[in-house]
Amino acid sequence: MSISPRAALARFAFSCALTLSMTVPVLAEEPGLPTTPEAVRDAAPEADWAPIAAEDLLVMTLAPADDGAQRRVIIQLLPDPVSAGWVSNIRLLANAQWWDGTSVYRVVDNWVAQWGDGDETKPLPGGIKTIPESAYTVPQADQAMPEPCSADGSDANNLCDTYAPRGFFRQGWPMASDGEREWPVHCYASVGVARDLSPNTGSGSELYAVIGQAPRQLDRNIAVVGRVIDGIEHLTTLPRGEGPAGVYADTNRRTPIQSVRLASSLPAAEQPLFEYLRSDSDSFARYLYLRANRQDSFYQQPAGGVDLCNVGVPVREAG
Amino acid sequence: MSISPRAALARFAFSCALTLSMTVPVLAEEPGLPTTPEAVRDAAPEADWAPIAAEDLLVMTLAPADDGAQRRVIIQLLPDPVSAGWVSNIRLLANAQWWDGTSVYRVVDNWVAQWGDGDETKPLPGGIKTIPESAYTVPQADQAMPEPCSADGSDANNLCDTYAPRGFFRQGWPMASDGEREWPVHCYASVGVARDLSPNTGSGSELYAVIGQAPRQLDRNIAVVGRVIDGIEHLTTLPRGEGPAGVYADTNRRTPIQSVRLASSLPAAEQPLFEYLRSDSDSFARYLYLRANRQDSFYQQPAGGVDLCNVGVPVREAG
Repeated sequence: MSISPRAALARFAFSCALTLSMTVPVLAEEPGLPTTPEAVRDAAPEADWAPIAAEDLLVMTLAPADDGAQRRVIIQLLPDPVSAGWVSNIRLLANAQWWDGTSVYRVVDNWVAQWGDGDETKPLPGGIKTIPESAYTVPQADQAMPEPCSADGSDANNLCDTYAPRGFFRQGWPMASDGEREWPVHCYASVGVARDLSPNTGSGSELYAVIGQAPRQLDRNIAVVGRVIDGIEHLTTLPRGEGPAGVYADTNRRTPIQSVRLASSLPAAEQPLFEYLRSDSDSFARYLYLRANRQDSFYQQPAGGVDLCNVGVPVREAG
Repeated sequence: MSISPRAALARFAFSCALTLSMTVPVLAEEPGLPTTPEAVRDAAPEADWAPIAAEDLLVMTLAPADDGAQRRVIIQLLPDPVSAGWVSNIRLLANAQWWDGTSVYRVVDNWVAQWGDGDETKPLPGGIKTIPESAYTVPQADQAMPEPCSADGSDANNLCDTYAPRGFFRQGWPMASDGEREWPVHCYASVGVARDLSPNTGSGSELYAVIGQAPRQLDRNIAVVGRVIDGIEHLTTLPRGEGPAGVYADTNRRTPIQSVRLASSLPAAEQPLFEYLRSDSDSFARYLYLRANRQDSFYQQPAGGVDLCNVGVPVREAG
C-alpha cells in the first residue's frame, strides 16, 4: 500500500523516543499485540490510566487570539516530594490570583516561553518560601532502580543517558538519578522556575515552558515544577522576542494572562479532567519498548534505544 | 551581583548541550580563556570559521506575514556524499522553480513543519532520480573516529548516544556512525524528505523541518538533506494543523511559498552569506567541552555531557 507523504509522516506524527532500563522486552514479538506505541496506548485498559488530581493542575487562560480563539494552557504540577517547595509557592500564587494581569513576556526559539511579571514590580503575596538549592534533588525513593548504562545490549530500551547515570519514570514523570539522589529532567513542555544567580533559586512567580530541544544541562541547576499537558501550541506559536534574551522590547507584544487557577479552585463543572498512562503498567512497558524498537512498516531500521525526553508519556483528557 | 530572572535566563538563552568523544579536555581550566560556549564562539578567530557555498544554500520566501513582515527561511544543504541523491533532486527542483506557488501545508507541534505540493497534483520536472534506501548511510569516511560510549568517565564530553554507537561532527554537521557506515542525524531544525512507505524514499519535493525534540528514531529511516540556519521562527510559529496528521483541513490556512531558490542562482548582491564554526577547530573543541562542562556562574552542577543534538554548531551571517 502506498500512502501520501503526509500520510506517511502521519505514521510517525506522534512517534517519540526514552532511555530507560527495563527487565523486558515485554512480549516484544508476540503475535497479535499492537505493534506501534500509539496502538498500545489506544489499547491500554482503563486500569492502566491514572487520574491527575485537580490540586495538581494549573489552568492558565491567555487573552484570546487575534481571531478571537480561546487560549487555555493546562500545566500538571510535580508530585511530592519533587520540587515540593516551589510547587507550594506556585499553589499560593495561584490562590492569590497573583498571575492575573501579568503576561508572557519572553519567547526564545528552541528554548523557552516565559511568563510572570515582566516589569518585576508586582509585590509577591505573603507566605512565599525561599527554597534552598539542595531541593533540586531528593533522596532516591525506595524502589527497584534501573542499572546504569551498559553498552552490552542487555538493555532492550538502551539506558544510555548523556546527562545522568540513570533515567527512569515514576508516576508518569521522566526522572534521573545518580543512585542516591533523584531529580526531574528538563524535556520539551517542561515547566521550570526562572531565577537569579545562585544561591537564588526563584520563587515560582516567573515560570517558563521549554519549547525546543530538551535543555538537560539545566537539570539540578534550576527547578522543574511541572509540564504543559494541553494547549502548549498557545505558547510555542507566539512571536519570538526581539529584545535582549528574547524579551519583547515592545511591551505591546506581550501576551496578557487573564488568569491562572488551580483546577481544584474552579467549579466542579469547569474542572479539566486528565489522566496519564501509569509508568508502572504493562501497557507503558510495551509502549516504551516500541518507542525504542519500532516494529511498524514505516521503520526499516529500529533505533534500539530512545531518549528519556523523547518517549512522551501518554496523557489524555478523561471522560 | 543579582540579575533579573529574565537576565538570568539570558545566561543560558543559547546554552545548548553533545555527545561526542574528544581527546580533549581542551585547556579546560586554563586561566584567561573564555568560560562560556558563547564567549568561545565570539572569540573564535576568522580562520576557525568556514564560509557556506552559495550552491549549498536554499532561500525559501514565504508570503509576507499578516503584519506585512517579510518571511525568509535559509536552508543549508548537506555536503557530498551525504544524501547526495536527494540533494541533487532538490537543486533540480529549485532550478525548475518547482516550489513557487506551493505551500507549507502541515504543522505538528513538537514534530515538523512540512511544505511542497499539498494537493499532490503538481507534476515533477524531468530528471528527478529515484534514490535507494541504501543511500541513507554512506561508508565511514577515513578519519580518526571517536570511540563508542564508555561509562568510565574517560570522555570529557561523554559520548553516550542513545541512538548510535558513535556521534561526531564533520564539516559542522552532527553525524552518527556504527564504525563502518555513517549518517546524518535528525536534530531541531533538520530538514528531511517526506516519503511513502518503504521502499519509497521520497523525491525531495515534499520537505519538512523539525520543530521539536530531536526525532532520532528517524535516522536511517528517512533522508536528512540539510538544516534551517536562518528564519526558522517563520516555520515554528505557524498555526498547528487541525486535520489528520496535522495537515491544515482548511487549505486557506496554508502558508503560500512565493519562491525557493539556490542562493547561487540569485544576483550576487542578493546572495546571503553565512559561515559556520569549523568542527575541526580548537575553538569548536573548547566550545563543545564547555557545552558539556559548564563553568560559568549560572551552572552549579555541570552535566559532564551533552547530547549530539543539543550542541548547536555556531552559524552566523558573514560580513
